[in-house]
Amino acid sequence: MAKLWGGRFTKGTDKAVEDFTSSIGFDARMYAEDIAGSKAHATMLAKQGIISEADAKAIVDGLTEIEQAIEAGTFEFSVALEDIHMNIEKRLTDAIGEAGGRLHTGRSRNDQCAVDLHMYVRKAVVHIGELITDLRKAILEVAEANKDVIMPGYTHLQRAQPVLFSHHLMAYFSMLGRDAKRLALIYDYADTMPLGAGALAGTTYPIDQSYTQELLHFGKIYENSMDAVSDRDYVLEFLHLASMVMMHLSRLSEELILWSSTEFGFIELDDAHCTGSSIMPQKKNPDVCELVRGKTGRIYGHLLGLLTTMKGLPLTYNKDMQEDKEGIFDAEDTLHFALSINAAMLRAMKVNGARMRAVLQDDFSNATDMADYLAKKGVPFREAHAIVGAAVQHCIEKGCVLADLSVEDFKAISPIFEDDILDAITIEACVAGRSNYSGTAPANVMRQIENGKKAVRAEEAQLASWAREIQL
Amino acid sequence: MAKLWGGRFTKGTDKAVEDFTSSIGFDARMYAEDIAGSKAHATMLAKQGIISEADAKAIVDGLTEIEQAIEAGTFEFSVALEDIHMNIEKRLTDAIGEAGGRLHTGRSRNDQCAVDLHMYVRKAVVHIGELITDLRKAILEVAEANKDVIMPGYTHLQRAQPVLFSHHLMAYFSMLGRDAKRLALIYDYADTMPLGAGALAGTTYPIDQSYTQELLHFGKIYENSMDAVSDRDYVLEFLHLASMVMMHLSRLSEELILWSSTEFGFIELDDAHCTGSSIMPQKKNPDVCELVRGKTGRIYGHLLGLLTTMKGLPLTYNKDMQEDKEGIFDAEDTLHFALSINAAMLRAMKVNGARMRAVLQDDFSNATDMADYLAKKGVPFREAHAIVGAAVQHCIEKGCVLADLSVEDFKAISPIFEDDILDAITIEACVAGRSNYSGTAPANVMRQIENGKKAVRAEEAQLASWAREIQL
Amino acid sequence: MAKLWGGRFTKGTDKAVEDFTSSIGFDARMYAEDIAGSKAHATMLAKQGIISEADAKAIVDGLTEIEQAIEAGTFEFSVALEDIHMNIEKRLTDAIGEAGGRLHTGRSRNDQCAVDLHMYVRKAVVHIGELITDLRKAILEVAEANKDVIMPGYTHLQRAQPVLFSHHLMAYFSMLGRDAKRLALIYDYADTMPLGAGALAGTTYPIDQSYTQELLHFGKIYENSMDAVSDRDYVLEFLHLASMVMMHLSRLSEELILWSSTEFGFIELDDAHCTGSSIMPQKKNPDVCELVRGKTGRIYGHLLGLLTTMKGLPLTYNKDMQEDKEGIFDAEDTLHFALSINAAMLRAMKVNGARMRAVLQDDFSNATDMADYLAKKGVPFREAHAIVGAAVQHCIEKGCVLADLSVEDFKAISPIFEDDILDAITIEACVAGRSNYSGTAPANVMRQIENGKKAVRAEEAQLASWAREIQL
Amino acid sequence: MAKLWGGRFTKGTDKAVEDFTSSIGFDARMYAEDIAGSKAHATMLAKQGIISEADAKAIVDGLTEIEQAIEAGTFEFSVALEDIHMNIEKRLTDAIGEAGGRLHTGRSRNDQCAVDLHMYVRKAVVHIGELITDLRKAILEVAEANKDVIMPGYTHLQRAQPVLFSHHLMAYFSMLGRDAKRLALIYDYADTMPLGAGALAGTTYPIDQSYTQELLHFGKIYENSMDAVSDRDYVLEFLHLASMVMMHLSRLSEELILWSSTEFGFIELDDAHCTGSSIMPQKKNPDVCELVRGKTGRIYGHLLGLLTTMKGLPLTYNKDMQEDKEGIFDAEDTLHFALSINAAMLRAMKVNGARMRAVLQDDFSNATDMADYLAKKGVPFREAHAIVGAAVQHCIEKGCVLADLSVEDFKAISPIFEDDILDAITIEACVAGRSNYSGTAPANVMRQIENGKKAVRAEEAQLASWAREIQL
Repeated sequence: MAKLWGGRFTKGTDKAVEDFTSSIGFDARMYAEDIAGSKAHATMLAKQGIISEADAKAIVDGLTEIEQAIEAGTFEFSVALEDIHMNIEKRLTDAIGEAGGRLHTGRSRNDQCAVDLHMYVRKAVVHIGELITDLRKAILEVAEANKDVIMPGYTHLQRAQPVLFSHHLMAYFSMLGRDAKRLALIYDYADTMPLGAGALAGTTYPIDQSYTQELLHFGKIYENSMDAVSDRDYVLEFLHLASMVMMHLSRLSEELILWSSTEFGFIELDDAHCTGSSIMPQKKNPDVCELVRGKTGRIYGHLLGLLTTMKGLPLTYNKDMQEDKEGIFDAEDTLHFALSINAAMLRAMKVNGARMRAVLQDDFSNATDMADYLAKKGVPFREAHAIVGAAVQHCIEKGCVLADLSVEDFKAISPIFEDDILDAITIEACVAGRSNYSGTAPANVMRQIENGKKAVRAEEAQLASWAREIQL
Repeated sequence: MAKLWGGRFTKGTDKAVEDFTSSIGFDARMYAEDIAGSKAHATMLAKQGIISEADAKAIVDGLTEIEQAIEAGTFEFSVALEDIHMNIEKRLTDAIGEAGGRLHTGRSRNDQCAVDLHMYVRKAVVHIGELITDLRKAILEVAEANKDVIMPGYTHLQRAQPVLFSHHLMAYFSMLGRDAKRLALIYDYADTMPLGAGALAGTTYPIDQSYTQELLHFGKIYENSMDAVSDRDYVLEFLHLASMVMMHLSRLSEELILWSSTEFGFIELDDAHCTGSSIMPQKKNPDVCELVRGKTGRIYGHLLGLLTTMKGLPLTYNKDMQEDKEGIFDAEDTLHFALSINAAMLRAMKVNGARMRAVLQDDFSNATDMADYLAKKGVPFREAHAIVGAAVQHCIEKGCVLADLSVEDFKAISPIFEDDILDAITIEACVAGRSNYSGTAPANVMRQIENGKKAVRAEEAQLASWAREIQL
Repeated sequence: MAKLWGGRFTKGTDKAVEDFTSSIGFDARMYAEDIAGSKAHATMLAKQGIISEADAKAIVDGLTEIEQAIEAGTFEFSVALEDIHMNIEKRLTDAIGEAGGRLHTGRSRNDQCAVDLHMYVRKAVVHIGELITDLRKAILEVAEANKDVIMPGYTHLQRAQPVLFSHHLMAYFSMLGRDAKRLALIYDYADTMPLGAGALAGTTYPIDQSYTQELLHFGKIYENSMDAVSDRDYVLEFLHLASMVMMHLSRLSEELILWSSTEFGFIELDDAHCTGSSIMPQKKNPDVCELVRGKTGRIYGHLLGLLTTMKGLPLTYNKDMQEDKEGIFDAEDTLHFALSINAAMLRAMKVNGARMRAVLQDDFSNATDMADYLAKKGVPFREAHAIVGAAVQHCIEKGCVLADLSVEDFKAISPIFEDDILDAITIEACVAGRSNYSGTAPANVMRQIENGKKAVRAEEAQLASWAREIQL
Repeated sequence: MAKLWGGRFTKGTDKAVEDFTSSIGFDARMYAEDIAGSKAHATMLAKQGIISEADAKAIVDGLTEIEQAIEAGTFEFSVALEDIHMNIEKRLTDAIGEAGGRLHTGRSRNDQCAVDLHMYVRKAVVHIGELITDLRKAILEVAEANKDVIMPGYTHLQRAQPVLFSHHLMAYFSMLGRDAKRLALIYDYADTMPLGAGALAGTTYPIDQSYTQELLHFGKIYENSMDAVSDRDYVLEFLHLASMVMMHLSRLSEELILWSSTEFGFIELDDAHCTGSSIMPQKKNPDVCELVRGKTGRIYGHLLGLLTTMKGLPLTYNKDMQEDKEGIFDAEDTLHFALSINAAMLRAMKVNGARMRAVLQDDFSNATDMADYLAKKGVPFREAHAIVGAAVQHCIEKGCVLADLSVEDFKAISPIFEDDILDAITIEACVAGRSNYSGTAPANVMRQIENGKKAVRAEEAQLASWAREIQL
């Protein structure tokens, strides 16, 4: 097939090159953006008198038909036509003749590709934003529904101090809240219009970039055409967001896996979110959590991959940059799954509050409170720490825990202990006592939940506003 | 040496463990933050009546002396004391006795470490922000000083169209402007106080986190104590920023290296920024550019390293997280060098405008304009493209360029050409003709420079405001 | 559809989970390995009397039909059946009834998947090995055909000393030779049979692993069943190889891009390996080289991705490991393209020896030889270096090069110079003089080429031997 | 300070450049290699008559004194002298005068640096090899000492089937055995001598590379000088090995952490390998395991960092490559710690066999064997699987396990069950029954241990042979 750029070439392209440099296999995903961009460009060209109104109308109508064909599944994509842009342009020219050829006036594939991907990322930000917010809502629901459940809090995977289960969950709400905050920067970067940059230097046609900006609902225009076609920061920001989200979810996944084990037994995931074994009839495996955790690797890989690709590239466009798309498409799909399935899993899982409470009865999670008790009676904390440490060691050797000790046992350990010691170190007292602003006391956790509800409403409003702006 | 946590232990720590888990070798860098945090904590404890005013005063005075000793170089750090926090606390206790032991009331090493690193990152944001802005100023200066210089613009490292040298440079100004924009998010994350989270769950002491917040100039407090001690997002954001900056600088470095080569000859770096060869007397190597480009790898490595470390960690604190500091310290140092040396290099380099202009006379950078000329006279662009492509091929075979053709030659190529063709495709016309908003025409570039000056002033104001907030 | 593991489940699988945990979209690529593995397993089961000979025959014949259906494109894959293994087993059971169900006796999906991927990687090693060797042959051909061409050798992208163009190319031959050497380790790891490991602990059926090993041509068997189902080292080794190959090719690509630029002009790539611009008629872009360079990022990403996925996984199988396949399949395809297209490009490119020789006439590449001249006459090298450095500086100021100096000029620089100086620093003398074993002198380069021919023959023999072993 | 390459420079080096391009801060670690390389070079120069015997003796003696000064701690390193090579050469010249200047005859910093790092890596391979082998020996010891201990085997962190604890441990023995196998390739790459490559093209002096090779005990010489100074494959191989080792150890660490938790309780790490909490007196944290797991990130970072640095570098030496050393030094130190501390931890930990056995009594790990029992009596496995799945579900609802069922209960589930069912599904029977080659049956594990002993002896012999070759 004759290339549109073949003028100075005396020989055709190697078939292997054609196959491998072709991007139609993945960039067809941006067909809607490509068509929207072309319609706006044609409309602007006509307004500026660069092409005729009739040509513009033929182009816009032709593109509408192509969009319908693609969505109906009747459009045949050709590898030899390299990419989505050429596939559409060729079909347009076949359909409407010479007018189709005028669409490319005053633009280049470089700025055309760039504007498509900007629009795509802008849309993906809203898509992923909605899923982050929904997962945050699921966390709020589960936290609120289980607000009286107490569980062991861990550091170093060793039991540390009792915490509210809802407090633990709300830590993930906070993490994902930071991810939601990241969206604005990515949106801002993606919301900058590169169209008009031409191949690298602008164009000699009297185009009106402000008008195209308005038609495509961009917040601003690239000041510098060379930057416009060289910039992939907005893609890297999205991949960075994806890496952060997956890192957070890998931590949640790890905990859900631990909590689902026989050894912990804190939760039971719904059958719908587990799979079994072809060999072992008793198995109920938290496959989904493992897959989310495992897919963290591929997302980090996409981020590193594009960072590596961009390293040391001279201005302006280099073909290396074609590597910008597959990673972001896969990242969007992976985030879609990981976020939505976690929301569903949390909402459906069974929380074994009784089990969590029971294990606390059988460990040393209240040791800090025992030391604090002494310290508040005037024992220097380091000394109180040593007294309790020795008591713990003593219990371990005897096979009991602190809660098994009688008031007399406590008094034998230290004369500072009084009759109120047993009440002071109940699990409920341990939780209620941590009442400073960030602490796990019930009132604080309820405040987090209430503030959280306001936060997700604000996020939803922001996402809706963006969706309106870009007419989703 | 007796550990502060040894109560339940029957045996001392293995020496190799002590050496390897010790972080004093690098975290001493946060001594100022650690001391400031401790002073604020002690002051709050006294205000709340948790410790006496006398104790608080002894602590604050003791810490001031320690800070002076560290800055005077007379403080001896001990590996056995594990980290900067323990080194300072031990010295304090040696100096002021029992009061020193009370400093740790109502806090844990987990929230103490976290608050130190938050303060450190907040400061690093300002530090690096100033250097980004200064490099942007250097670009403005060089762009303005060379505003009439025309050079070949490239895509695929093939000459594409003539551009202003200042337009090319201003693309880097734009890239670095996005980096400057990233600072606000990192600052916002770092500007959240974790102190009061205790080990993971808060504390049973009646501490006042708002007061400590005020003393340490934090914008907000972590809502959730478990998040407070588990969160390393602010560190990862800084490493992401560092990766983006280095990616941008690796591109600039690549270009400076190319431009310094005999083959390009577009610039000459100052002797002060080059090195020679021990063997080859003629060599003048752009070592600094190469080193900046090469160091991109280590920064990506730090980002990926910490992302990997954080993957799959259950809440809350795990020792894995001790790996958070070396990368960020090295990233700060690397950015410091890379940003400041690039500013110096750009300011000192010699721009060979004559050479750039001369090579343009000898290539086909004006081919697009020749095609545009035809297209504006009504030839469909695809046809014009083919005509010019053939002309280029013809010239290559004859060993000349388009500028060598006479009006008659042009007319022989196509009767559409008229006498004004020679004027239409001069290098100056090529540049001036790209006058759309993002294009390389001189007026646009001057607008970029003027807007750029405003932008750096705004950045400087923001940085100064942050510096005031955190009393740098 | 009823799962084969559904016994203890009271509810079906969530559709989204089914879609996302399904791997049939990519693991169908291993159909031949899966079928071969199953045939061998069934044959062994019959030999051991675990299933009847009739059942084994039905299974083997059924699998042969399935293989034919897949290769004929008539096999319909189902997402609900999760993976290639279940798709094939279900079809088999539909076709031959109860006997099909007996195929899974004494094995599990864990060891079944593992044996398939081992066989796949073993085959991929041979595939990629052949391409590495062919590229090495292409280098030999081009080096030999251009054995008299002299070019500037570079350090720091500054001209350093003249070298043979073939010497430069043969450096890549050496790099790729190390890659070829890496194959043996990967083959050795992949050539270890995990079948028989069962889910993790072996099986209670009296299977004969040695017999299956023989049927599947494995060099050895995993000693430890838990290692057998947990190990992904062989995949990581392949990704490491892929990263090293791409790193080497990214360097070659960078040089081909530089050499194709107007500024260097050392080579001209064939039209078949370049593309043009839709806007700029003069452009001939080295797209393929850029794409190979750019794809280095994705391969590094695959390596990092799987390393990250495997980090911290407890034994034995975890679903995270399903992420092992897409990376290696993409790596194999990318290597296939990158290696074969580079072989084609090198064979087809035009080497502009005259241009390379001409530019050497116009630079200071012979400065070292001028210093060596002095040193050999007794001037301490550091002093000789200084003398030549000053002469270079003098020439630069005067706009000439060392070759432009007359004997008198040399004598004026230093009385040590004699009449033979002009001959001593010709480009040809510079090259011929570096005659130590590793040096660029023509005889050495011819030796490299001759040794290289032997090396590729040995590689071909090794690859053929492997191919025979595994009956490719 | 006057640079040794300053001839053509009219201005000194910027102080910041000097500081940042200086590598003395880390490359001093290669002093012994640098001195050995220089001695060999000088000795060869004298043998070839390029320098006098007297000069060679002065050089060798001078270098011996410098080595002694460095080892005595009396050598003062200077940042301005850039690197270890210049520091030593300057001191030598100060000490012995003009003869010192002759040492650099016929070599360049490029091949000098390269030979030093080759020798360093060769030594590091032996160093790390010894530690891998010792950890493997520790595993053998612990496996043998606990050969009767049965534990739950896991897939998906769900209990799957009982396995011998020693079988589980021996999986790590196998993993580390593959790491040990990797050493030979790295050694082979590092054992190639680059000295004689000069700056890039060889040298015009009549050096004898074979003689230097013999003096430095290299197995071979780089065939191609340009490859010799451009190659960093041997460093990347080492970093790849380090990544694989750390990945394996991160898995072991994860398991040791899990097993040390209250929930699992399978092992107790020695006090010497744990740390406590400054707040919580009961804590005993597996810090070392966490730190090893966490440091996996930094090692991956080093690998990716250098891969990124090398991407797209044109031949030959570029300053970017100075980034080759810090990563490998840190990787060696990290491996040293991680390998040796794991050997010590395993040897010192307490294995709670009774606890492991007890939990097995209380779960469904024998469900597969119950299904196998049915299948061996002729029930199709899929049907047997369903019967047992239902029985498991029934037990879960009743709060019991399979082992709690009576023979009558079994018969009620299926009439196929006979009186021997209780014996068939004891934990001991489950383990003993998996007697195929890779399976967990005791005899197999003993065979692994015996084969393992032979393997480590062979490794020790290989390491000793290398150590002799390079005269460690």
